[in-house]
Order: sequence, then structure tokens, then C-alpha cells
Amino acid sequence: MSNKLSFSSDYMEGAHPEILRRLLETNMEKTNGYGLDPYSESAKEKIRAACNCPDAEVNFLVGGTQTNATVIDALLRSYQGVLAPESGHINTHEAGAIEFGGHKVLTLRQKNGKITAEQIREALDAYNNDANHDHMVLPGMVYISQPTEYGTIYSLDELRNISKVCRENRIPLYVDGARLAYALACPENDVTLRDLAELCDVFYIGGTKCGALFGEAVVIPRPGTIPHFFTIIKQHGALLAKGRLLGLQFDTLFTDGLYEKIGQIAIDSAARIRSALRDNGYQIYTETPTNQIFVLIDDDLMQRLSEKVNFGFWEKYDENHTVIRFATSWATAEEDVNQLIMLLSEYGA
Amino acid sequence: MSNKLSFSSDYMEGAHPEILRRLLETNMEKTNGYGLDPYSESAKEKIRAACNCPDAEVNFLVGGTQTNATVIDALLRSYQGVLAPESGHINTHEAGAIEFGGHKVLTLRQKNGKITAEQIREALDAYNNDANHDHMVLPGMVYISQPTEYGTIYSLDELRNISKVCRENRIPLYVDGARLAYALACPENDVTLRDLAELCDVFYIGGTKCGALFGEAVVIPRPGTIPHFFTIIKQHGALLAKGRLLGLQFDTLFTDGLYEKIGQIAIDSAARIRSALRDNGYQIYTETPTNQIFVLIDDDLMQRLSEKVNFGFWEKYDENHTVIRFATSWATAEEDVNQLIMLLSEYGA
Amino acid sequence: MSNKLSFSSDYMEGAHPEILRRLLETNMEKTNGYGLDPYSESAKEKIRAACNCPDAEVNFLVGGTQTNATVIDALLRSYQGVLAPESGHINTHEAGAIEFGGHKVLTLRQKNGKITAEQIREALDAYNNDANHDHMVLPGMVYISQPTEYGTIYSLDELRNISKVCRENRIPLYVDGARLAYALACPENDVTLRDLAELCDVFYIGGTKCGALFGEAVVIPRPGTIPHFFTIIKQHGALLAKGRLLGLQFDTLFTDGLYEKIGQIAIDSAARIRSALRDNGYQIYTETPTNQIFVLIDDDLMQRLSEKVNFGFWEKYDENHTVIRFATSWATAEEDVNQLIMLLSEYGA
Amino acid sequence: MSNKLSFSSDYMEGAHPEILRRLLETNMEKTNGYGLDPYSESAKEKIRAACNCPDAEVNFLVGGTQTNATVIDALLRSYQGVLAPESGHINTHEAGAIEFGGHKVLTLRQKNGKITAEQIREALDAYNNDANHDHMVLPGMVYISQPTEYGTIYSLDELRNISKVCRENRIPLYVDGARLAYALACPENDVTLRDLAELCDVFYIGGTKCGALFGEAVVIPRPGTIPHFFTIIKQHGALLAKGRLLGLQFDTLFTDGLYEKIGQIAIDSAARIRSALRDNGYQIYTETPTNQIFVLIDDDLMQRLSEKVNFGFWEKYDENHTVIRFATSWATAEEDVNQLIMLLSEYGA
Repeated sequence: MSNKLSFSSDYMEGAHPEILRRLLETNMEKTNGYGLDPYSESAKEKIRAACNCPDAEVNFLVGGTQTNATVIDALLRSYQGVLAPESGHINTHEAGAIEFGGHKVLTLRQKNGKITAEQIREALDAYNNDANHDHMVLPGMVYISQPTEYGTIYSLDELRNISKVCRENRIPLYVDGARLAYALACPENDVTLRDLAELCDVFYIGGTKCGALFGEAVVIPRPGTIPHFFTIIKQHGALLAKGRLLGLQFDTLFTDGLYEKIGQIAIDSAARIRSALRDNGYQIYTETPTNQIFVLIDDDLMQRLSEKVNFGFWEKYDENHTVIRFATSWATAEEDVNQLIMLLSEYGA
Repeated sequence: MSNKLSFSSDYMEGAHPEILRRLLETNMEKTNGYGLDPYSESAKEKIRAACNCPDAEVNFLVGGTQTNATVIDALLRSYQGVLAPESGHINTHEAGAIEFGGHKVLTLRQKNGKITAEQIREALDAYNNDANHDHMVLPGMVYISQPTEYGTIYSLDELRNISKVCRENRIPLYVDGARLAYALACPENDVTLRDLAELCDVFYIGGTKCGALFGEAVVIPRPGTIPHFFTIIKQHGALLAKGRLLGLQFDTLFTDGLYEKIGQIAIDSAARIRSALRDNGYQIYTETPTNQIFVLIDDDLMQRLSEKVNFGFWEKYDENHTVIRFATSWATAEEDVNQLIMLLSEYGA
Repeated sequence: MSNKLSFSSDYMEGAHPEILRRLLETNMEKTNGYGLDPYSESAKEKIRAACNCPDAEVNFLVGGTQTNATVIDALLRSYQGVLAPESGHINTHEAGAIEFGGHKVLTLRQKNGKITAEQIREALDAYNNDANHDHMVLPGMVYISQPTEYGTIYSLDELRNISKVCRENRIPLYVDGARLAYALACPENDVTLRDLAELCDVFYIGGTKCGALFGEAVVIPRPGTIPHFFTIIKQHGALLAKGRLLGLQFDTLFTDGLYEKIGQIAIDSAARIRSALRDNGYQIYTETPTNQIFVLIDDDLMQRLSEKVNFGFWEKYDENHTVIRFATSWATAEEDVNQLIMLLSEYGA
Repeated sequence: MSNKLSFSSDYMEGAHPEILRRLLETNMEKTNGYGLDPYSESAKEKIRAACNCPDAEVNFLVGGTQTNATVIDALLRSYQGVLAPESGHINTHEAGAIEFGGHKVLTLRQKNGKITAEQIREALDAYNNDANHDHMVLPGMVYISQPTEYGTIYSLDELRNISKVCRENRIPLYVDGARLAYALACPENDVTLRDLAELCDVFYIGGTKCGALFGEAVVIPRPGTIPHFFTIIKQHGALLAKGRLLGLQFDTLFTDGLYEKIGQIAIDSAARIRSALRDNGYQIYTETPTNQIFVLIDDDLMQRLSEKVNFGFWEKYDENHTVIRFATSWATAEEDVNQLIMLLSEYGA
């Protein structure tokens, strides 16, 4: 509500106007609850088509932490844990939701938010070769994010390799797609929804950060992967009574390529900002192709910038420098990007 | 989407139009997430005022099962269970969400969905007097609903007595108000929001079934009752990223008496239907003053009615009779009530 | 340590002397931990032979609650609950250990501590026919005790019928045999270890109350029923470091028919006491063939008896009467039985 | 059962003969269960005296993983985690028992198995200073081991500093003393039982690895620290029916300085082996003063040694070298130490 420019995160606005339009239009219709309504059915069909996966099970949940906790608990047996990058959202900012479900997060060292097939193989081999492994948590699945918490993306080759290790070891691969639209829209990206459906056991298509008021679409490409998932969702308090609200939003996002368009706006805006940063001598901290831009900045300059722009504080780098984050989104206005670019140019680096 | 009249439940439509109007109006504003926004703040203030409880903590969650599981887990220590009527929602239709959090539901026999202070006292005495009680689950709180799952309500006297037993035994009292608007609007009701704030340790004001798209407002009259509740909500996957969606809805519901009006519509509609049932010789199964009407009906008549009206199947009564439920809501149209009354009159009982 | 006769429970002494003799004899041998020792292996073989089940997996745990919690958590998926008589130990005196593991105990009304195949079928049918069953806890297994908490036993016919319902519904049957020796030794009993192995998916042979210092032998007749059970045991804190202590005890109990002999002593003692009770006009409260005898007694008489004998208080019957319990065991001395019988005769009823 | 020398672990034998003698002596006494017996009472008194802590609550559990899981779950609220060295037993070899209870293990980098007060302070500061800490697991206690998994010990100064940080931050300090006898007996050690009682909130005195058949004595110096601990123990399946078995063992260990003597034997044996290793040019991998000796050894030599001696494999060091572990204990025979020393001398390094 301030007059400052805002690039601090990608969930500060409501929803894409088309979503609101349809909510209004359908508001007084009477439908069954819990996702058993025609809008949810239509959205599922469109997502199945987009994933080229006509048999996929699709379920709509409300938020990311909820989705991660529910899916991971559903995929694991009680004595199993989940392999994840130490920077993974489930390991850092979900308040122990995975452990609340009884499962250990088995962390792997990350590089730019990513882990490799080789690391997964090593972790599984280490477990299998440990004489005491019956006293240890069994690695029962792999969790990664696309894009990662650091805004980086897995290439198709990398994802294929990870999927291969998982399948050789018969453990499921789950991809957190909270910001998936912003990976899909990257020129650098070569992983499509179809690839995800082929290579993952479960993944979710993020709505909350990608144009919806809220909502995440969980895709299970091979039906039967998670028996009784509906009940598990209910048990986790993750079943929305008026499920059509989720169905309608995803139906809208998957009509006329809206989900792609939404991603494109964020990526184009980010590209323009990145270009301006480089042109003006700012130091990009991590090269990322998606909607998050990390800049290593002098603290004085940060202070001055912060009087005109809201951005994210990422981490203290050293005594005089900080890493900050600019996030664009489907809602980023061209005019705001223009103004930010002028400011960046005016202040130099 | 059918042409049939629908009285099957109270969460079949979207939201009160005023809520949608304001969602639209504020859609492109940028606000902080997780409830740290001006709309949430405003809604909290209005709820505090309505409860005459200026220090109350108010938190907004998405749905009822989620709210119950989160609040109960927050109020109990690991070795404690929750006393509840055997018909309580947490004991029947929440897929074990309470047990998922590690707690036993300690059931008491219900009468018309209600339990008494005396039953609670007896259960606590039985526990305390049992020589083996250290081997048993300690009753750590009481859960009731207002109105109950059977549409009945607790009187102020009854609630006072229950509160008194709880306080004498130093265990918290939690009231599930999923349909609270429909209790508050009853002529028979003498329990106000202020009374709830005085007599309960935690209660929630239902939105999902009372005019909102979704949302439940958890009221903790005495601050500090639940330390770190925000983190507990997050851990349960119950923290909405765009918290303002909840704030805005409750802000609207608590502006210009909308929550009361919403309740009134449902209660007036139910009263007209009840009256028509009686006039036409139908047998009311449980006398309820709220928005749910239970009718004991001959199966043939039920069959014929079901061709014109959607209603809820409650339970099989005997070989030839069934208990069915008509539910009204904030969205019930006068015209639909008129048509239902005509049908009831036409078919007789 | 008092001079009073003691019939208050069946775990007041240490272990059968032969067990202590062998503990002493083998004390300074060095063996691998966690059950990977020759005594455990030998005990497993003897139990497999006694069960006529050469492929059975056998694991030794320390106590009953621990065993129930571990086995039930291992057999159920997170969204499933366990059907059990409301009087079942898991529902009453295990301090919520099953719920701690995330599972609901789905209670069935008991009669003399028992439930019937018909009740199980009805519960499963009720679940399956409930339109809302996806919102409910799925009954995922059946728990019964042989003998029951009330000292009664299931006949082979009854057990076959229960097993049949479970198999038709593809849910496992688990039998708690904390006092199994006392069922096996009954003349009225027609259920052998072989029958249990054939009809159950998991059962345990109680040691703690049947001659051992501690220990319960979990038998899984069909290998592979519970993958990674060793790790599950460890996760539940139920893996004894010096597993040979368990192995040695069960090896001893299953050598030269010791487990049978132990049961016989308790049953013979109980039969003599029962006979004396009847001869002297006492009122047996529940007819039980095992080592627990329930007597409905006038409170004055109870008071006088309690000055000379320790017995169990079972429940208040009415204002002037109480149900008390005499328990015999492998350690019951003939002389003590003689004295009790004299007392019963002296005091009359 | 092999003829090889055995130094592979410290829980390969039964119990100190004096314990068996008393088990035999008291075997047929009848006592109440669950620790409500005179032997448990006597043992508690002796432990209180040894800790100079007359009000301490003392509870006896069966094993280490069980004790850790029960105590940690009892000390934490559902949203809290436990700070621990990444090498801590709870993080590595307890099969996820802490997570099964719903809690995250928050790991700190260890050095020789130890963490510092400074690391704890930094972790707490990092949490407190993180703008998003309400989305994170709250560090609710500290877990360390004395001695550590690597055989090292905390000095009194180090322990005082850790205790100070914990108290300043109002979080409890818990010390795992699975091998406590072997720390107490070290000449290098300056931390007494009295110090532990003063500086910790909970600690346990290990029995399983220190002379008992099994059993760990949990000491809570300030009563009331854990309300309803008895029920929590029961809920965790950790309550031994014949609790006197635990009481009697600890009563024996704390009579006539037996616990100290037991430690001394192991420490003296280890000192002789360490000396021989040094004299013969072996490379000690970690300097440890307790009963575990870590040696970096050439794989050929390891192979040859393993034909005559059982030892522990610790970790692969490089292509041609391995770290192995010799463990002594209360049961280590002088003759075996002599033979090992001869072998070490014969084979050289």
C-alpha cells in the first residue's frame, strides 16, 4: 500500500483478472464440494492434455507447504525419509511440516539450489553399503524444485539423470513446482510439462505464485501411485470444501495458454531488469534464468535503493555487502520495470 | 448445475456478492503475505470488537478440519486427548486428522449432538479416580460445536456449566463454529459472540459455510493461550500465503452486520420449511432451531421427492424409512423455498 | 514383600528359574547385538516349529504396549485405523500409543472382551456403504487378544470366521497374545499355535506374563508381510541391544514344553480357586477359562478378604458390590492356592 | 562364539555377575510393576545421592534410542526441534525415532563428535535474527553425548558454557550418557555426576553398555521439568512391566562404587591398548580418552589383524586405508588385552 516500487515477492497481488471474472460469473452456481464439480473436472482434463498424460490423476490443494507435506507423507512409509537439497523449502521454511508427518529430511549439499543424479546415487549407495543401514532412515524418495529456491532450473538432461537414478532404485521422484510457470517460460528451459509427467512420479503446478489467488495442482502421471490420496488430503486438513474454486482457477490458467502468458510476463520483466543491472555495473550474485534476480550490493547503495524500492533481503554477504532479491511475477507492470531500471541506472553500482 | 431444487448442503455456492466485489476492487494491490496486511488487521479489530475482547488473538485459517486439527494439536500436550461427543466432526468425518497429530479423541455419548457438563465432569472424575490412570490418555481439553452436527444449539446455561467444569479442571474449552452464523441468528439462541469469548479458551467463527468462499476465524480471547501459534499453523500446512484473502472476507462479513444478515436468511428459510413440513404432516426427526432440518420420511416419498429436489441423506431409519436433511444457507433463494414448500404440500407425508 | 497372599496380577515375580539358570550360564559369552545371535536364531527355529510354519519371521520385542504400537504402525498406512474391541488394551491402557503413531482405534462393542466376525463385517460394510467414507478413517486391520482382557478365549470357529472376514476384505488380522500360554493351556481352548499361524497375519506369543523376565515374540507367518520390520522396530525404540536376552528366554520357554507347563500351572490353580468359589457360594462375574477369575463380591466381604489377600480391583458394580479379580500365573504356589481356598471357605460369600 | 579376540563393541556380554546374583536372589519375590517396587526406590535414592540432588526424579527405561526418543519428545513442544551434532546418535542411527515423534533434528557441524557453546549461540541467534523465523522450526533444546559417539568428552568448562547458553535462552540441555561410566572413569575427565545434575535439565546414566543387561537411568534434577513423564514413557512403549529388573540393576551398579569400577576396567584396558598402538607405530585417528580407540590402518594390515581379532569398521579413509575401532568395556579380560597387545606388536604398523 506504500508508494514505493515493489519487487519483493511474487505473491503480493490477488489473481489474474480473468480468474476473478470467472469467479464472479459462476459465483451463485450450486456445485458439489471437494472437487467433485464440473470446473475441477474440466481443469483436470486440460492439465492432463497439457501433460500429454490422459490417465494422470490431478488433485488441487491450497498451498505449497500443505502440498509438500501431504504428498511426501503419502509417498513415504513411516520408516522412510526424503532426500532433498539442504536449501529445499521443505528443509528450511516449512516449520517442520515434514517431520510433523514423521519423516526425516535427508539433506544433500546443494549448488545454486540444485542437486545432481550423482549425489543421489552416492547417498543411496552409502545407505545400501552401510553395515548399520537397518538402524538408519531409509531414503524413500527424492524432492527437488523446478525452479529451485535460488531461481535456477534443472535441464532436461539433469532431470532425466535424476529420474533414472530414482527408477533404478525404485524410489519416487517428486518435483515442487511452486513457481513452475517461471521455469516453463524461460528461453533457457528445455523441460516441458510433458517431460515432467514422463520423468516424475508426482509433481505440482504452482498456482499461488503464478496467477491464482491460491492453489497448487498435484499431478500423478501414473494412476494408482498413491492409493486413497483423497483421504490423505482430508487427513492433512488440505481438502477445500468448495473445491470448484481451485478447479475454476486452474481451468482458467489452462485455457488459451494463460499459464504460459503469465510466465512470459515475469520472465520478460526479469530479463529487462537483469540487463539493466549488468549495463550499470551491478554484480549478479547467482545467474538465474527465472523470475528471481539475486544481486550482491554495497550496503550503502542498498540503503538508498530501499527508500524507493521494496526488494527481498536474501543474506548478509560480508561486513559491507548484502545479497538482495528482486522478484517479478505475472503481475509486474511494465511501468514499474521502467522506473526500476531508471533508478538502477541513476544510482549506479 | 441441474434444474432440481437444491437443499443438500450449505457450501454449494461461492461467496456473498459483497465479498466478491471487494476481492475485485482490491485485486491488484500489493500487500505482505501470511496475514500481515491491513485487511487482516482490520478484520481482526472488527472481530475483537464483536467479541468485546480487545486483546483477543485472531488467526484466519482456510477450512474446518484444518482448523480443528491445528487448534487441538496446539492446545494438547503429546500425551493428552480431547473429550468430544461421539458425533463430533473430529471423530467422524475428518479422516483421522486428530490422530494424525498424535491425539486420541475421547468420546462421550451425545444426545442430539450435544454433551453435558455433567458428562464431562464424570469423564474427568473417572480418569482421576482410576488407579491406572497413568496408563491412560489424559483428557486435556473439551471440543464441542455450536451449532452441533445435528443442528442443535447449546444454551448459555449449558455452555456456562461446561465452561465451569473445564475451568475447575484447568482444561481448555474449544468450540467449533463452522456454522456459527446459523446459531447466532436463531431466536432460540442466547449465546452471543461475547459469551463465547468469555466462556471458551478458543473458538472459531465459520466462514466457509457462512458466506465466505472459504475461511475460519480462530479467536483466542486470552492472548498467550497458545504460544507460537503462527508457527504451528505453518507446520500444519494451514498458513495461506495471500492471507489478505481471508482478512478481506472476514472484514466484509463483520462490516454492517453482514454475518448476522447471512445467518438470518438461512434461519428464516429454514423456519418456513419447518412450518410447511409440520403443516403437511411430515415427521421432523430432531427438533433443531438452525439451518439444518431432519425429516423422517417414507422411502417411496423420498424417492419421489428426490426427482425434484436435492437433499442430504442422513441415515437409514428402518426398512421403509430414512432420515433426510434439508439445509438452508445465506444463499437460499426465497423462490426456491416457495417451490420446495409447494412440493412438500403437493406430495403430503 | 508383604505377608499377604498375592493374587493381584501375573507379572509380580521374575522369571522361571530355568531362564535365570541359562542367563547365568551364558552371561560372559560374547555375541552380536540386536538379535543376530545364536540364541535368538535357535528360539526362532523352535517357534517356527511350534507354529508349523518354517518360513515365519519371528522378532522379539520387550513389552506388550511396545509390541502393539510397533506392529500396528507397521501394518497400517497413515490414513488407516485399527478395528478393536472397546475393551482392547490398545484402546484403554496404552496411554494413546496407537494414536501417537498416528492411527485411530476404531472401536467395536465387546461382549466379555470379544468381538465377532459379524461385527467386523458390519463395520467394514458400514464404511464401504457410507457415501462419505473418503472423509473417514479407513479400517485397515483387526486387533483382538487371545485370551482377552476379560480372560475369555476365542474358539477356533470364531477365529476362523474373523480370519475369513479379514481375508475377504484384504485387511490383516493381528492377535495380541500377552497371556497366550494361559489360553493354550485351557481345556476349553481349541486354538493352537498352528491355528494362529494359519489364521493371523501377525500375532505375538507373550513372555512377560508367561514365565519370562520380559519379552514378546512377534510371529509373522508369511514372510514379507511387513517390509523393513527391523528398522520399524528400531524407529519405535523397541530394539533391544542385547537381543540374545530375548532369544535365550524364548529358547528356554520353547524347550521341553516349558511354555505349556507354565500355562498349565496357572490354569490348574485357577480351576481350583474357581471351584472353591462356587462351592462356597461366591458369584463368578464372568465365566472365564483362563488365569483370571472375576468375582462379584459384597463390599464388606471384599474389605475383610483384602486384609489377608491381595487381589485386583476390577470395577464398582453397584453401591455395595464390586468386581474383583484373582490372577494366577506360572509362579503361583500350590500352598498359596490352598490358603486362599481355606480363606474363601472360612469367609463364605 | 568364535575363538577370535573380540574388541568390536561394548555390549557383547550379559551383565556384571553381581547383577545376575541379585536377580537370582530376588527372583521369586512378588513386587508391584512399573517401577513401583522397593528396588527401584532404593536405586533412585542412590542415584540421587550420587548426583547430590535429593529431589531429582529418576526413571528407568530399557534402551538408548528409546530413552532419547521419549525424553526429547517430552521436552519439546510439537513445533520445536532439537539442536544436536550432526554425528549425534539421534541423527544417524536411531532410524528416525525423533522424527517419528514429530521433531526435526537441527544439526550443528561437529568436531570430534562435539559441538561448542558458541555454535549453539550462533544457531539460536541465527534463528532469532531471521526475519522468517516464524516459518522455521524453533530450536527447543540441545542434545549432546558424554562421551560422544567418537569417544571424546566435554570438559567441565565446555559443559558449563553450553549450559549457560541454554539457560540464557531458556531451552533445556539433555545429555545422552549411554557410555557415561567410561567418561566418569577417565583421568582426563572433570565432569562429575553432580556437575551433570547441576548443569543439565535431563541426562541419562547408561546401563546397557556399562555393566547392566539393559537399562538407562533418566535423571531429572529439578522435579516438575517434565509433567506426566510416566504417561509419556508408557505412550512411547517404554515402560517395563517388571520395573524392578531395572531398579535392581541400577541399585547394584550404585552400590559399593560398582559403576565406577566398571568404568575403570574399560579405561585401564583402553589405556594399555593405546600405549601399545603408539609404541608400535600405529596411527591413532582421533585422540580419545574413553573406551573407544580409533586407528587409521593400512588395509592389508587390517585384513591380517581381522583374522585374529574382531574390531569395529568405522569408515573408509582412502583407497588403501581404513579407520577401525577397538572398544573395551567392563567385561574386557586382562588376558585378552595382553593377547591383543602382542598381536599389535607382532604385526607392527
